[in-house]
Amino acid sequence: MTALSPLAPAGFPALPALAGVRLGATAAGLKYHGRDDVMMAVLAPGTTLAGLFTRSSMPSAPVQWCRQVMAGSVRALVVNAGNANAFTGAKGLAAARSTAEAAAGLVGCAPGEVMLASTGVIGEPLPVDGLVGALPALFARLTADDWEAAAQAIRTTDTFAKGATRSAQLGGVTVRLNGIAKGSGMIQPDMATMLAFIFTDAPLSAPVLQALLSAAGERSFNAITVDSDTSTSDTVLAFATGGAGGEQITAADDGRLDDFRQALGALTIDLAQQVVRDGEGASKFITVRVCGAADDASAKRVALAIANSPLVKTTIAGEDANWGRLVMAVGKSGEPADQDRTAIYIGDEQAAAGGRRAPDYSESRAHEHLKGREVRLTADLGVGAGEATVWTCDLTHDYITINADYRS
Amino acid sequence: MTALSPLAPAGFPALPALAGVRLGATAAGLKYHGRDDVMMAVLAPGTTLAGLFTRSSMPSAPVQWCRQVMAGSVRALVVNAGNANAFTGAKGLAAARSTAEAAAGLVGCAPGEVMLASTGVIGEPLPVDGLVGALPALFARLTADDWEAAAQAIRTTDTFAKGATRSAQLGGVTVRLNGIAKGSGMIQPDMATMLAFIFTDAPLSAPVLQALLSAAGERSFNAITVDSDTSTSDTVLAFATGGAGGEQITAADDGRLDDFRQALGALTIDLAQQVVRDGEGASKFITVRVCGAADDASAKRVALAIANSPLVKTTIAGEDANWGRLVMAVGKSGEPADQDRTAIYIGDEQAAAGGRRAPDYSESRAHEHLKGREVRLTADLGVGAGEATVWTCDLTHDYITINADYRS
Repeated sequence: MTALSPLAPAGFPALPALAGVRLGATAAGLKYHGRDDVMMAVLAPGTTLAGLFTRSSMPSAPVQWCRQVMAGSVRALVVNAGNANAFTGAKGLAAARSTAEAAAGLVGCAPGEVMLASTGVIGEPLPVDGLVGALPALFARLTADDWEAAAQAIRTTDTFAKGATRSAQLGGVTVRLNGIAKGSGMIQPDMATMLAFIFTDAPLSAPVLQALLSAAGERSFNAITVDSDTSTSDTVLAFATGGAGGEQITAADDGRLDDFRQALGALTIDLAQQVVRDGEGASKFITVRVCGAADDASAKRVALAIANSPLVKTTIAGEDANWGRLVMAVGKSGEPADQDRTAIYIGDEQAAAGGRRAPDYSESRAHEHLKGREVRLTADLGVGAGEATVWTCDLTHDYITINADYRS
Repeated sequence: MTALSPLAPAGFPALPALAGVRLGATAAGLKYHGRDDVMMAVLAPGTTLAGLFTRSSMPSAPVQWCRQVMAGSVRALVVNAGNANAFTGAKGLAAARSTAEAAAGLVGCAPGEVMLASTGVIGEPLPVDGLVGALPALFARLTADDWEAAAQAIRTTDTFAKGATRSAQLGGVTVRLNGIAKGSGMIQPDMATMLAFIFTDAPLSAPVLQALLSAAGERSFNAITVDSDTSTSDTVLAFATGGAGGEQITAADDGRLDDFRQALGALTIDLAQQVVRDGEGASKFITVRVCGAADDASAKRVALAIANSPLVKTTIAGEDANWGRLVMAVGKSGEPADQDRTAIYIGDEQAAAGGRRAPDYSESRAHEHLKGREVRLTADLGVGAGEATVWTCDLTHDYITINADYRS
């Protein structure tokens, strides 16, 4: 594990116990030594499920498994780190099935009620015996509050464990949301290489949970990028146990959901931003905002073109106010923009206005902003009212070091 | 100028004089000191012209100028390095016009017969007085054979001057093609950040020249990528003086063009590959071939997804046979592929077959291949007969060093 990211939060937050969730972690020695690499969660009967998965055409075996068996109900989650069980053919699918069957035997449910995720190297056979062999002892000592251990166990190149918690009022009851996540490379829009698991004791039907998760995901997990690469294994799962009590909500437009929706939005953005803050080699956290676009979707494409540009990311790493590279990235996106009305901001400093350098632009003020850990870049395209915000990090020597030497 | 690229050719080739072309270079001190930064070429009356330009929605003033004035005839070319005259508003367009007018006055032609290109920093006003002031003395000493000086003058972060020459038989006459180019960063498909100028003494009408250039460009300049970024300034111009004599060819499907077409194809690939060999920080030249795709266009998109993947490029830099990242990149492209029939090769070593690691795969043989300067990566998608080849380089610490510190 490389040094702690300079953008890491102060520590892992205190996540409360949730009625209907027990979890824990253990060391199965699948790849790493001296650390946990398997986590398991068991959910109370009646827990509902929602999911978002990678759009890769080469999905991992666990992603294929989840898509295939996902129904409204779920009883367990098993996640391993160190091996992605991706591009492993029929043997990989068999390994996924064996894992689900083993967990189902312990929990007393159908294998199809067990969700799986794996993260790590692609193309290596999963050491399934080691994984399955570790489950009974792990199952025997699950607790209600081992959130940090679970978050630690699913890390790969992550330098810190990622967690977040929120609460909301729902139909007169206080409900809680806990989330854990991993991810630091192969992170890109449309579901970064990340795993995220969100647990709530709110009483929500599966379709409602899916609608809420899909909407929240678009503005969080699908609005981050570290290196533009897309994983074979991206998975976000949400589990609603209903343990808080109250009447189950069965319509996504139910007005009682407002506070929960807001809390879920904040929680997913928190987790997604933590992934960016742990971006491989990251030294700056960058917020890219695009406004004045033809529409919101166009704004997001431009924002991602900026956020994915190696030349933009290296200029930020160098604390160089080379705003011309933002112009380049806007142009590269191919989206509608009016050069003569385009404006560029670095922090609050307007670098460009009306298609050229702004008259009062101060490179030293822009440079001051870039010296900080938190960088804001804004492009106003001057053609409409569309806007979007995405988050990314800079591209540094450490990214090269980490990725030119990942498996060694 | 950083150290010479380890992938550089042995030296600048010997480019012959071409009837109807005089050229030269000078130092205008626009940004660099102690080196030439302006080149000029003067073409004989009757020279025909073809061009390819960036698809950026933020094109530079010289690109706007060329697009606006381009007709069938041309008399001069003026190129400067150090300042891109991009995102410089009305003043930038006026600076381009002033430059063309000054050159036209010297040559005795219309300003619209002067082509322009600028490369360097975006968003800084072009020091047009310095550029215009340098032209009379430069014009006075143009020669027929200063090709290397011209190629040297248009460099920015390039570590070597790029040139190529070919000859062809055309209607019983031997014709020659000379080309010079620059480019090493902000290089991506759809016209890498490069400038390339191709001169021939062949007798070709402007439409024929354009048809030949467009076709050749698709398999050369538009089949390379260094960092996925697109310049505001990409320009390829071809000039045909007709000085070799013979009847002018006026139909692109004229059978007499076969040998010329082949020579132009070889010349443009040679120049495009030189740009990749000077990719910022490059230590490996990578040929990515995709076959078995739904069609050629799909194959090219997959090849570019592989070639642009930071994780693929860093794994090659690290000489690590982490072929799972190629699978990731295929999946990321979103193009049709059959996971169970996908095969991956590193050099001649088959790493994956039938959707999993190949039974006889030898990581040490793959590693042997990756230790060389020339790396070949192949993906067979197993769905059709489409194929494409693109060229790129690895992503190294030197790319970060160069780009985090470009303007300082």
